[in-house]
Amino acid sequence: MPEHDQHYLDNLRHSAAHLLAAAVMKLWPDTKRTIGPNIENGFYFDFEFSHAISESDFPQIEAKMHEIAKGWQGFERHELSEADALAEYEGNPYKQELIKKFAENGEVLTFYKSGEYWDLCKGGHVDHPHQELKHFKLQSIAGAYWLGSEKNPMLSRIYGTIWPSKAELEEYLAQQEEAKKRDHRKLGRELDLYFIDDMVGKGLVMWLPKGTILRDQVEKLAKEKEEAAGYQRVATPHIAKEELFLTSGHLPYYKDSMYPAMKMDDGTYYLKAMNCPHHHRIFQYKPRSYRELPLRLAEYGTCYRNELSGTLAGLLRVRGLAMNDAHIYARRDQIKEEFSNVLKLTMEYFDIFGLKDYWFRLSKWSPDHKDKYIDEPENWEYSEQVLREVLDELKVPYVEADDEAAFYGPKVDVQFKSVIGREETMSTIQLDFAAKKRFGLSYVDDQGQENNDVFVIHRAPLSVHERFLAFMIEHYAGAFPVWLAPVQVVVIPISVDQHEYSDQVLKQLLAAGIRAEDWNEAESMQNRIRKAEQQKIPHMLIVGKREAAEGTVSERLRGNRNLGVQPVAAFISNIQKEIESRAL
Amino acid sequence: MPEHDQHYLDNLRHSAAHLLAAAVMKLWPDTKRTIGPNIENGFYFDFEFSHAISESDFPQIEAKMHEIAKGWQGFERHELSEADALAEYEGNPYKQELIKKFAENGEVLTFYKSGEYWDLCKGGHVDHPHQELKHFKLQSIAGAYWLGSEKNPMLSRIYGTIWPSKAELEEYLAQQEEAKKRDHRKLGRELDLYFIDDMVGKGLVMWLPKGTILRDQVEKLAKEKEEAAGYQRVATPHIAKEELFLTSGHLPYYKDSMYPAMKMDDGTYYLKAMNCPHHHRIFQYKPRSYRELPLRLAEYGTCYRNELSGTLAGLLRVRGLAMNDAHIYARRDQIKEEFSNVLKLTMEYFDIFGLKDYWFRLSKWSPDHKDKYIDEPENWEYSEQVLREVLDELKVPYVEADDEAAFYGPKVDVQFKSVIGREETMSTIQLDFAAKKRFGLSYVDDQGQENNDVFVIHRAPLSVHERFLAFMIEHYAGAFPVWLAPVQVVVIPISVDQHEYSDQVLKQLLAAGIRAEDWNEAESMQNRIRKAEQQKIPHMLIVGKREAAEGTVSERLRGNRNLGVQPVAAFISNIQKEIESRAL
Repeated sequence: MPEHDQHYLDNLRHSAAHLLAAAVMKLWPDTKRTIGPNIENGFYFDFEFSHAISESDFPQIEAKMHEIAKGWQGFERHELSEADALAEYEGNPYKQELIKKFAENGEVLTFYKSGEYWDLCKGGHVDHPHQELKHFKLQSIAGAYWLGSEKNPMLSRIYGTIWPSKAELEEYLAQQEEAKKRDHRKLGRELDLYFIDDMVGKGLVMWLPKGTILRDQVEKLAKEKEEAAGYQRVATPHIAKEELFLTSGHLPYYKDSMYPAMKMDDGTYYLKAMNCPHHHRIFQYKPRSYRELPLRLAEYGTCYRNELSGTLAGLLRVRGLAMNDAHIYARRDQIKEEFSNVLKLTMEYFDIFGLKDYWFRLSKWSPDHKDKYIDEPENWEYSEQVLREVLDELKVPYVEADDEAAFYGPKVDVQFKSVIGREETMSTIQLDFAAKKRFGLSYVDDQGQENNDVFVIHRAPLSVHERFLAFMIEHYAGAFPVWLAPVQVVVIPISVDQHEYSDQVLKQLLAAGIRAEDWNEAESMQNRIRKAEQQKIPHMLIVGKREAAEGTVSERLRGNRNLGVQPVAAFISNIQKEIESRAL
Repeated sequence: MPEHDQHYLDNLRHSAAHLLAAAVMKLWPDTKRTIGPNIENGFYFDFEFSHAISESDFPQIEAKMHEIAKGWQGFERHELSEADALAEYEGNPYKQELIKKFAENGEVLTFYKSGEYWDLCKGGHVDHPHQELKHFKLQSIAGAYWLGSEKNPMLSRIYGTIWPSKAELEEYLAQQEEAKKRDHRKLGRELDLYFIDDMVGKGLVMWLPKGTILRDQVEKLAKEKEEAAGYQRVATPHIAKEELFLTSGHLPYYKDSMYPAMKMDDGTYYLKAMNCPHHHRIFQYKPRSYRELPLRLAEYGTCYRNELSGTLAGLLRVRGLAMNDAHIYARRDQIKEEFSNVLKLTMEYFDIFGLKDYWFRLSKWSPDHKDKYIDEPENWEYSEQVLREVLDELKVPYVEADDEAAFYGPKVDVQFKSVIGREETMSTIQLDFAAKKRFGLSYVDDQGQENNDVFVIHRAPLSVHERFLAFMIEHYAGAFPVWLAPVQVVVIPISVDQHEYSDQVLKQLLAAGIRAEDWNEAESMQNRIRKAEQQKIPHMLIVGKREAAEGTVSERLRGNRNLGVQPVAAFISNIQKEIESRAL
């Protein structure tokens, strides 16, 4: 598929907005048209209709658009006087308001004409509309205030999309369809995973029991892997006195992103926006020997950040973040191995979750912007080279980005392409050689001397629970692998005669540590199977007369696949293996 | 041992203060004596010495006290004029200040005399000092400002204790000794469990890696037991808007105990002091059916409370509390069974931790103080009767306490006697019939009708991490059972020749999920064993030439007990059983 420049796509989409208005005016001449800009992936046009219209009118409008487009050879530019322009829109107060405003500002009043239709417009169109305005689709209708102000009348906004080719239109529509199905907010509601409660507050996630199982399973995975990798867990408060954040430098620079201060008897407190200052204090709790390094302190710490309310979106951007956090305190000669191990751990996680389309980005400083970075040129050169060597030795794909580092050192971000085609940053691994000065971190070296050359690695391979689970809900479209699934098995007795048996099966499953339910409601088997599919439960065990007699179950997988009859014990042994291996 | 009334003990202790001052004045006549009251378990006296004294002077003072006491037949009361009284304390500005103040207030100036010694005093003594002032001991010396004001001179305060019998004195001293050894603040420091950091704030616990293992093990136990008992886990934010706490009633009534407000773009936020309001909102997330009840929502939620800074003490009283919380939403006909199950779970926990000396307290309302309690007499009668029946049927020891209930319903507290003899409240289980009104909790009953008769049980059998672990550190004197021990095993190679073998043993232990360390420092074996005893590590595996050759270990238990030689695999299998069964 050809790559188009953005300028061409903008012109195409704005031209399509003209076409939409032309069709509407043809169909319902007493409509008052207002404005129609291009937007990302498409366009819209705001109208005041004299009758209510709905999405069921779209086919008629689209047909008229195709019909009109055939006669559009190009866009002719015309300049009109204010009086002529006003006359053109008699009875349309919106256009007249615009014309008066433009005239007041001394702007030229331009109109663009195609076929019989023209409209007040500043330009930006395609050259051959009859050939180019073909692959479009109207998508939705919504209310919108005139000029965005709620004091003005509510207009009807029609959204559409248009692409240079049929293939691109189809791909975009399919992706939209897929994104809608996989939307974590929709699935979060349908699968009872979480909700945001107005009474609790914006950007604060209330995890329901099924969502908490997801959280806990991810956390369990992280703890297992981190324990095996020699991390030690700590637990620190969610607040601290301003002294701590002044030392770390979060105050005053980061103050706007923090929740407001709380004045107490012994000082001013803040909710923490990061876990690092608390961890640094644990490092400083006692003198450290070179033998203790690298010291790896891990905590699933919850941080609070005052993100702009307009940017909050479901789990993707929140104000309360449960972070897969750890800080590694290392000697200069240890950072390469530690950084390498963190990258390997990250890739191990990606593998477990079946994420394949990812790459790394090495963000470096810029010697031309010394004000943005800690002034230790030697450490910058050294550590960037170390990270580059790690990436090379691991033979992973990566790009380098100048002038994109953190203040305190270079970092490696892990980028991935989501199942619906968006590029996202999942994890970040940062090297920090500023903390040692700010906090005065040091260790006693093998000569018994105090050594201040302590490097800190900040790492969160699994990001925060909220963001990571938003990606995973989308990635699996809610059909989680068995080890993550909130309910792993439902037992469905065919009739009331098998209730006793299904209850026995349930007890065996629960005793084996499997998350299972017994669905013995007085409802048809087909309905219960449909519900289990809706809830995306991976295993259904149907039990009828024969299964009850033989001590077996008839296994059915999510997605309408029958695996046939087997003994209960065999099923349990198989699913346990599936869970233990975290099979995809 | 006889029980003495408090009045007698007070007189005994005040008399001993006279005796202490008499001895000091005999030994160092130029000392300026001030005041000497009785206190809990003993007495003190404040002096201005002309030379520095220390605890090494105590034997001399005590000997003089015993010598003087023999000549004290009783306390004679004398009344003196202001002039005579002032003359008596020439050169002692403290006593003179007191005398002038008493005289100004028109008080009679009384002196009490025993043997050669007399002192300004308002009375309160024993009748036969030569017989009664025998079983005492001086305990410590500390600085204390005259009249408690830092603007006044610093005096030397000598503390002592006295008892009616030798046996009582000895028991008290032994208990003091034991309490000192078991003090969770001392052990917390020695065993690297936690610390309180001035830069983070008062009453906020920083859990070090070893303390975090304790926390995590207790949490794991709770999650296991709660999962088996049909609880569902949730995860909620640490903050919420004031609307939530106004609904729950925490605001404005509980405001002083909460951290101050944080004003944000969408409202005023508070750190939560309880988890219940958040859980109630999860209950209300969707309409609930009678089939869903009892609904048991559990969370180890961290709450923040503005406790008075003077009351904060190590882990025992903190401002950040990680609570073993859950709320059970039940129909009226379910509360008995639910309450009973919570009590059984509590007893199961006490059993696991080896707590034997405990009993229950049923706290009831009082119909005479209707202002203190929710006005639902029928519910009070009904629910108190239900709780009484539960306690009777479980055949557990309990007392009833009138007028001690919570505002919203009766409660059962679990009291226990600590290993050093203090009575403490460990857990509380409360019934709540106010929440249903405040939040409008309801369910759809089996007739399809909305029913508001929802009872809530608040329960925290394991209290909060901080308080519970303070008790456990004291209870075990830091020598935790293996399942809780931060380090379960150390391997100690006798010489450098066994380093390779000890490393192999370590790897086998770690692979088996055992928390182990290999202590192969160049330090004598005896020193390393002593350190392991100091750190209270339960198992030491000594490996020498013979063990390395045979693939065995020589097991030594904490407390100097040798278990002899055994194969590594046998040791691993035994300790795994010990861990799994959570043996004491």
